[in-house]
Formats: sequence, structure tokens, C-alpha cells
Amino acid sequence: MDIDYKALAKKYGTPLYMYDFDYIEHRYNDLKEAFAGKKSLINYAVKANSNLSVIAHLAKLGAGADCVSIGEVRRALDAGVKKYNIIFSGVGKRDDEIREALEKDILMLNLESEAEMKRVEMIAKELGKEARISIRVNPNIDPQTHPYISTGLHENKFGVEIDMAKRMYIYANKSEYLNPVGIHFHIGSQLTKLDPIRESAQIVADLVRSLKAIKIDIKFFDVGGGIGVVYSDEITIPVRDYAEAIFDATKGLDVTLLCEPGRYMVANAGAFFTSVLYEKVNAGKRFVIVDGGMNDLIRPSLYDAYHKIDAVMVEGEKSFADVVGPVCESGDFFGKNVLLPPLQHNDLLVVHSAGAYGFTMASNYNTRPKPAEVALEAGKDRLIRRRESYEDQIRLEKEFLHRDQ
Amino acid sequence: MDIDYKALAKKYGTPLYMYDFDYIEHRYNDLKEAFAGKKSLINYAVKANSNLSVIAHLAKLGAGADCVSIGEVRRALDAGVKKYNIIFSGVGKRDDEIREALEKDILMLNLESEAEMKRVEMIAKELGKEARISIRVNPNIDPQTHPYISTGLHENKFGVEIDMAKRMYIYANKSEYLNPVGIHFHIGSQLTKLDPIRESAQIVADLVRSLKAIKIDIKFFDVGGGIGVVYSDEITIPVRDYAEAIFDATKGLDVTLLCEPGRYMVANAGAFFTSVLYEKVNAGKRFVIVDGGMNDLIRPSLYDAYHKIDAVMVEGEKSFADVVGPVCESGDFFGKNVLLPPLQHNDLLVVHSAGAYGFTMASNYNTRPKPAEVALEAGKDRLIRRRESYEDQIRLEKEFLHRDQ
Repeated sequence: MDIDYKALAKKYGTPLYMYDFDYIEHRYNDLKEAFAGKKSLINYAVKANSNLSVIAHLAKLGAGADCVSIGEVRRALDAGVKKYNIIFSGVGKRDDEIREALEKDILMLNLESEAEMKRVEMIAKELGKEARISIRVNPNIDPQTHPYISTGLHENKFGVEIDMAKRMYIYANKSEYLNPVGIHFHIGSQLTKLDPIRESAQIVADLVRSLKAIKIDIKFFDVGGGIGVVYSDEITIPVRDYAEAIFDATKGLDVTLLCEPGRYMVANAGAFFTSVLYEKVNAGKRFVIVDGGMNDLIRPSLYDAYHKIDAVMVEGEKSFADVVGPVCESGDFFGKNVLLPPLQHNDLLVVHSAGAYGFTMASNYNTRPKPAEVALEAGKDRLIRRRESYEDQIRLEKEFLHRDQ
Repeated sequence: MDIDYKALAKKYGTPLYMYDFDYIEHRYNDLKEAFAGKKSLINYAVKANSNLSVIAHLAKLGAGADCVSIGEVRRALDAGVKKYNIIFSGVGKRDDEIREALEKDILMLNLESEAEMKRVEMIAKELGKEARISIRVNPNIDPQTHPYISTGLHENKFGVEIDMAKRMYIYANKSEYLNPVGIHFHIGSQLTKLDPIRESAQIVADLVRSLKAIKIDIKFFDVGGGIGVVYSDEITIPVRDYAEAIFDATKGLDVTLLCEPGRYMVANAGAFFTSVLYEKVNAGKRFVIVDGGMNDLIRPSLYDAYHKIDAVMVEGEKSFADVVGPVCESGDFFGKNVLLPPLQHNDLLVVHSAGAYGFTMASNYNTRPKPAEVALEAGKDRLIRRRESYEDQIRLEKEFLHRDQ
């Protein structure tokens, strides 16, 4: 698509998030087609980009939602996701979240510990309901990714070991208030190798077979998310191979396949626009100072993540520069040693692949307003979230100022 | 002070930030006394904790404010800081921020590059004003701290080299629209060694002397912030020694001493309260899952920062556990291998030293609402920021849902 970045930046101001809705649709369709011929549901992982309009766009296409807080469940429902397509996952659910999820009658709660199961049972009993649950199994497979986003090894907080899962299924199956309908695994994010997924799927499918043998009938086989995307020059997993691996593992099992793509769906749909404030040189080192900061996009600082950065319509001999924000931390950078032409005040930079874990992780650090968000669809742009104001930031504390003082 | 943590947690809910205003006052007075007998101004670094009531508390004591965005300048003014006690610092100021700061007639703008100075001059000219400025000098001293918070070496984005500073002062002194009244340095945060500060102060004082020799009369000698605090067992800098080092360096100079403590003032005034959801064990490793997450307090995840964690009024044999939040990232933890007694649902944990860079860095990741903030003063507690609601989180995007769809 031919996007006039300059015009968009001028119209909406910077810093700004932009998401290409056509790209999201294209990604959704690719994945859906890869799973064609099998019962399947694509549950968009809302945490990647939880803007209501983004979720609504995917809901229109038929996507379900994978949610990790009751706030995300509400977003999914508000955005038009059908309640029977919503899963509530996560290692730590509060009682009020469990209660609301049961009352809202979503597809299922994905459980990650025995203690959590007992609380869900207790609350379901209080409500006189049967809670549909799945259990997240930790297959102890090394996904070979960044330690912060790897989740499939035992020594982390996610899921339960196979033996524990089995005990939990047997318990749940006997309980009047629990209905174990699903099984789940998710070994990490930004996976670029298929083997760990294949291996995990086989381990979990074997567990499903042994559960079916004792009359515990698992209906949903949830393979999580984690399909890697291209930030730089990664070779990632073709979705057809991905689906084939799942098909192989579940051969002969009558299950609905669920997958929970987040980053896959939105990372490369998004770009972060930021304007150059000025350049400076310290001890021969070139810095490009921009109006976006780590509060807007924390991935480079938090994960040392790479994002491709381009200057829009600027000519000139390129040299290496660090692209840094105005926040008072050395960790406030978007890229180090980026090849860029000489830049002037108000030149526009595009930080690519910023559609996932960008805005959702934004903060108000340094009393900086969260950026606006814009959707591009069929050649048209529209605002999907207003830029925050100073008043928005102090709204919840203003009334307490000077009280009792 | 004898704080009934349990009662506070019950009254306001968890996760929760609590700040001891008496402690803040005590810290302010200690620092003020250390500088007694000299012209001095303590400019609270608002970025550490920018709650309006926290700033107002310090303003009442006579503190000025060091601000790094126009939002922080507005907070300072709203909270009652006198305009002639406000400094606007930071490496990247937008034109509208510069304009507003000049219009609001604050004490001075602290500049960090030649390009920025030219923009300030241009805007001052447009407004027909003379901009009072200081220049942040980078003394190229290694502060020996975490790379993300060290700022005094040349190869980072902060400040300008001595030679450049001199050229800038000479330029500013000639300009009709610039009035170079101050000089500034800040070599890093959480400094625990006095020598780097002493050395930097001497280098910068020498520059002031050479500027005075050419009739550039620097009135404000701004030593920045960075005094280390005790998170664990650090031996930090006694404020009297700190002040003495500054006095020594500036001997014979007729200047007002400014310092910009942030963390020093509030870090240990604050605690983060979080409730236990449940415990789980994975492969022999114990996890305590709590209702607070990295979105509430990101320091452990972002800086690998240590925070002391205690269970409130729980007995029992202690064993090592990772204290983790509900956020779907392995990086979502408050402490690793923390010695804790066996914990039950709803037991309360206190994460200490959370008053600085806690709430200010909070996000809505996973659609989690930002916590409430509470002040304790003279034995009384009061809300100073309301807990965010789901409605608060979608306020700026709700209106765009389904539009054009």
C-alpha cells in the first residue's frame, strides 16, 4: 500500500500509532485458510493490541478473543466478539474477575494452577454454575526465544506439569461445578522454529488421548499463539506448516483447534510515527532526538527489541545515529546505530512493526500523554483513539489536591 | 511509624501505592538543613512521583520543581509550586512546550544541545521575550551505576561537552533573546559514591569561573539529583557530605545552589501493597502469584531492580519463592528467591521502596487499571488518586468504535 506518512503525521500529529487494517485482515485470512477443513477458531490475543476498533475489526472477520484480564474480556464483548468465542487466560485471576467471567458465560476459563481451579470451583458453586475450563499444560519444551517471552519451560510461572494437569482434569471431571472442556499450551512468543511447537503439540495430544481413555472428553485443543513475525530478517514459520504440524499431532482426535495469535496478527500492521526535534553530537556520537519516548513504545528498552526505523522522504548521505526520545533515561531509545540521512526539525521517522505490544504497554512516564491511534482501511484513515490530554492524566487525582492541607 | 497495612489494604483495595508524607517532609528537611547557610533551592524532580498531592506537599515545604515535560510543569504549577522555582529540563522539548514554558515565565529552561538553544531563541524571539536558560554540561565522569540510569558519560544523549557548553554560553550571552543564568550537571541516578559528584562539581565550577572571567554571570549552580537511596543494603551518601562537597567545589562563587532530588525524596516513602491470589509449584519451584503486575511497578522487570518484600502478619517456616504477577510475561515479577512464609489467598505483601518510579511508570498493559494512591500524614490516610476503572481506560477510544464499519 502506498501510505502518505507525512500527510497522516500532519493530520493527526506525532507521536502517533497507525495500524493497517487491511494487513490485519490479510493475516487473519491466511491463518484461517491454513486451518481450513478442520474445526478451528482463531482467538485474537487481545493483549497484543487492545484498541476496541482493532478487536472489532477482527470480530467482524469471525475471530474470537483470548483475554488475560476481565478488562480484556469487556473489551472483547464491547467490540462485538461473541461470548462463546472468548477465553479468559492468565496465571492470576482475581475472584471478581472469575465471577464476572462466569456470569458473562464466556467459552471457558483457562486455568494455570490447582489453587486457581479450587477458587473457580468455589465461585462457580456460589453462583450455582458449571464453569467450563481448560488447563494450561507446560510441556517443558525450550522455545529458544528471549527469556522474558519464553514460557514453556518448567522453571517459570506458567501452566502446570503434565502429571498435575492429569490430576486436575480428574478432579474437575468429578466436580459438579467444573467442566473440563479444553486443553491449552503456549510455549512462548515470537517463535521462529516449528520443532518446539510440533513437539509440544504431540506431548499435549498424547495427554488428550490418555484423558479420552478415561472418559474425559476434551473438545478444544488450544495451541496458544507465538508464531514469530519478521522484525528484521528473521526466518519465521509458514502458517501452513504450522497448521500441518498441529494436524499431525492431533490426528484422529475429534477436537476443535484453537489458536491465539496476537503479535502475528498486528505487529507488522502497525507503525509508530515520531518527529525529529533536533540532532546533537556528543563526543563524536550522533543522536537524533525525537518527540516519541520509551513511555510510548517500551520494547527497545524493555526487551532490547529491534525495530526498523526509516526517515520519510529525506535525502542525503547516511550515517549511524542513535534514535532517542525526550525521556530522562539512557534506556529511552528506539534504535541504536541506525543508518539515517541528516535530519532537520520536524522530519518524520517511522518505527516499523509497532502494532503489537506498542500502545498496550504505553505509560504516562514523565507526564507524557499517550499517543493517538489511527486506522487505515481501504485507503482511508480514521482516528481510533484520541491523543491524551493533560486533563486526562490528572482526572483521577485532581479532586484530592489540597484536601486536608 | 506503626502502619496498619492490613487495614489500609482493606480500605482502599489492592494493588495500591501508599506514600508516607511525614517521611518525605523529614527527607526534605534533612537536605534543606545540609544546605543551610548558603543560598539554595531544592527542586523536587517531579518525574520520580508526580502525583499532584505529593508535589503539593513538597511545595508547601518550600520546594521548587524540576520538570521534564510541559505536563510536569503544569503539575508543579497546579500543585502550588511558585513559577520562579520551576525548571524545565530534558533532552527533547517540543516547540509548543518551549512556548508554554516561556509564557508561564518559569525560572529557566535547562538546555541540552545547541540545536535546542537555537529553537528556544527562535521561539523567545517570536514571543518578544528573553528566555532564561541554563545549560546541562556533561562532565564525562563515570557514576558507576546501572547503564540505564547513568547519564554523565559522553557516549549518551544527555548534556553537552565542556567546549560546546562554553560556545553556547558565549552565543547565548550575545543573544537578545537568551539569558544564560544557570549551569547544570547530572551524572546519573541512584549514586552511592561521592567522588564522581565531587569531581563533576569541580569541573563545572571551574567552567563557571572561566565564564565569570568573560563576564558571563552564572547565578544558579544546579547539581542535579541522583543521591542514592537504600533499597537493600547500599551504603549511600550522607547529605551533609554531599552538601560539603558542593560547597568545596563552589568556594568563592556567588551562586545559588540548586539540587534536584527525586528518588531521594520519595523512594522509601512509598510502598506497594499487593494481595496473594494463590501459590503454585512448578518443577519444585515455588511461585507466589499476586494481584499486582509489572504494569503497576515495572522496575524489577525493566532494571532488574531489587525491592524488599514482606508478608504482613503471616507466620510459618519461610522458603524461597518468586513473587510474580498475573501479566502474561516471564518478566512480570516483583522479586526472585524471596524468603516468605506459606501464603494463603488474600494474604498481604508489601513491596518496599516503591515511592519513586513506581506509579509514574505504570501502564495499562493487559487492560489492567492503574492502582489507587494513598497518602499517610500524621497518622491519617487519605486517597490521593482514585483507582482506574474500565471506563477510564476506554474513554478515549470508545467513541470511535464501529464508526465507518
